[in-house]
Amino acid sequence: MATEIERKFLVKGDGWRAAAGPPRRLAQAYLCGGAGTTVRVRIVDDERGYLTIKGRTLELAGGVAGSARAEFEYEIPLADAEAMLQLRTGALLAKSRHVVPEAGGLAFEVDVFEADYAGLVVAEIELPAPDAPFTRPDWLGDEVTGDPRYFNAAMASGNGPPTGSNA
Amino acid sequence: MATEIERKFLVKGDGWRAAAGPPRRLAQAYLCGGAGTTVRVRIVDDERGYLTIKGRTLELAGGVAGSARAEFEYEIPLADAEAMLQLRTGALLAKSRHVVPEAGGLAFEVDVFEADYAGLVVAEIELPAPDAPFTRPDWLGDEVTGDPRYFNAAMASGNGPPTGSNA
Repeated sequence: MATEIERKFLVKGDGWRAAAGPPRRLAQAYLCGGAGTTVRVRIVDDERGYLTIKGRTLELAGGVAGSARAEFEYEIPLADAEAMLQLRTGALLAKSRHVVPEAGGLAFEVDVFEADYAGLVVAEIELPAPDAPFTRPDWLGDEVTGDPRYFNAAMASGNGPPTGSNA
Repeated sequence: MATEIERKFLVKGDGWRAAAGPPRRLAQAYLCGGAGTTVRVRIVDDERGYLTIKGRTLELAGGVAGSARAEFEYEIPLADAEAMLQLRTGALLAKSRHVVPEAGGLAFEVDVFEADYAGLVVAEIELPAPDAPFTRPDWLGDEVTGDPRYFNAAMASGNGPPTGSNA
């Protein structure tokens, strides 16, 4: 069974920028959230709007590993998406995502937050196994993998880390 | 300033059916509701699906009467709308709506509920003024205009009248 391992770190300084590819921009917020059905509005690269409805997460029957979740996504006019971001519950998550290649086919995704989390810069790396080795560039700061304040759900509900937490 | 006056009644028996036009069918539910942003899924005539997002109601500035509410509506595939009704919070409102013309250009809209409110039949009439006269057909039952259990919000949240309330 495949397992996705991600580790998440704070970022110190701008040393990563020299090797980074062109960023993608992402702004998103929830119109409703919580444990049940969620409705998310997202703007990609300042030009495409999306509305996404996800059902509650259901465990699969018969002891099969994994879970299932109904999901519906529609592209919507950009102006609608911009107006709907104002109807959000919780925080506006706006960030630019930069890919920084590393040795061995690995890569960091460096997310530079704006809006409600301006000042926060986080790097994630996806590893093939929990103990897989990887190079730690000197701009990599403290690991926050297990810190619930950095979980997407916490950040979207406004319970993310304090801004300026890269100090 | 125009004022919309609606009065709502329970319905006794089937005497209204002879004069009724062909019904329209409506099924709808909320994916999220409450005082803030609402997201509604609706199926019209068993063939067209719609997703509607409404912002909170805002009073207009400067003492202007009325209120404003952002609203976005998208037609979506019928199969998506059917699946989304299962993700609802609160009740499924399903009904067929029949228009019954009355004298003086007036008309009753008779809603025959199904699903969570099966057994409930309600008639509404829109009047030009609160004291405007209108004929009361013999199938018109008790007035429920001011009864909060018959408000749309109460019925959608599952706090509507008990079924069989036309007895």
